[in-house]
Amino acid sequence: MSERLSIIVVEPDRERALQIVDSLNDAGDFHIRILSEPASLAGNIRDHAPDVVLIDMANPSRDQLEELALASGPLDRPVAMFVDRSEEGLSAAAIEAGVSAYVVDGMEPRRLKPVLDAAIARFRMFQRMRMELAEAKRALEERKVIDRAKGMIMRARGISEDEAYALLRKTAMDRGRRVADVAEALVTSAGLLG
Amino acid sequence: MSERLSIIVVEPDRERALQIVDSLNDAGDFHIRILSEPASLAGNIRDHAPDVVLIDMANPSRDQLEELALASGPLDRPVAMFVDRSEEGLSAAAIEAGVSAYVVDGMEPRRLKPVLDAAIARFRMFQRMRMELAEAKRALEERKVIDRAKGMIMRARGISEDEAYALLRKTAMDRGRRVADVAEALVTSAGLLG
Repeated sequence: MSERLSIIVVEPDRERALQIVDSLNDAGDFHIRILSEPASLAGNIRDHAPDVVLIDMANPSRDQLEELALASGPLDRPVAMFVDRSEEGLSAAAIEAGVSAYVVDGMEPRRLKPVLDAAIARFRMFQRMRMELAEAKRALEERKVIDRAKGMIMRARGISEDEAYALLRKTAMDRGRRVADVAEALVTSAGLLG
Repeated sequence: MSERLSIIVVEPDRERALQIVDSLNDAGDFHIRILSEPASLAGNIRDHAPDVVLIDMANPSRDQLEELALASGPLDRPVAMFVDRSEEGLSAAAIEAGVSAYVVDGMEPRRLKPVLDAAIARFRMFQRMRMELAEAKRALEERKVIDRAKGMIMRARGISEDEAYALLRKTAMDRGRRVADVAEALVTSAGLLG
């Protein structure tokens, strides 16, 4: 995120939209885009890729809530959602849909900034965990393919595991590639040759 | 969590404590324990292991906030925190400290239930990710130790990778243990023998 956050605000109520703009401008330096029509959210996300999305809906249905959360791209940016009333189970649905901050009882100007801060912090924590998980899974997959390649080399050349790995690593260094990529290429090639 | 949630509520204000009890009893069937003294939280968490912790503080310092969040055991249960005012940066600090729901602008009875629901949903999502991450890391570690054991068997017996793995697996089955545990035992033993 750049220093100046860009925010898309979904706010059907014109009066509240003006309050939000005032409140955000008091709180910091934001680039704000107001959408009065929730259906335009997906297109605007695509075109403008905002840093944060802020949604204020009086009383959304579960479908509306999930659709808006999804359209916001909650894996790519923090999404804060304000509702006036919340049916039983709706706050859990919002969290499951990836909303970073879910506030029942409507939007109040003085509450905006701390909620935005919390949404950003929550999003970052979630993203850190997602990256850590992706990294752990990638390491496991690479390990598997390197082991397979090592086994193939050991059998083909009648050499030890250490020698097979040394050969893989030397090949990778010579070609300026990663060991995992060389191993992957070997396993794929062997598959092609039967 | 059992059907009847046990909640520890930290609320120094007696009047608000009564409101909270009323509001929770309206919302569902909870076992509620009120602490008027925040310093008693850690001991009560230890003794009663509540399903949820709910903290209401007028204007906590960053240190107080982090201390209460930590005392609540935020890795073991959802923690919802309500404050009347929040300094700049405090909501992010609360999230980082593991608070599942952080609400600025005080506790309002009608807001309790949706916040609790959100805190529980958030906690479960976080816990799912933590378990998935722990699982991915464990799989990687096991893979490493199994590969090491396999390599040792291949060298010692002059057999192929597949044969070495088959031997490991047979040994594990014969002893009713997991392949990873047998591999771990082999690697450890080899270390002992030099």
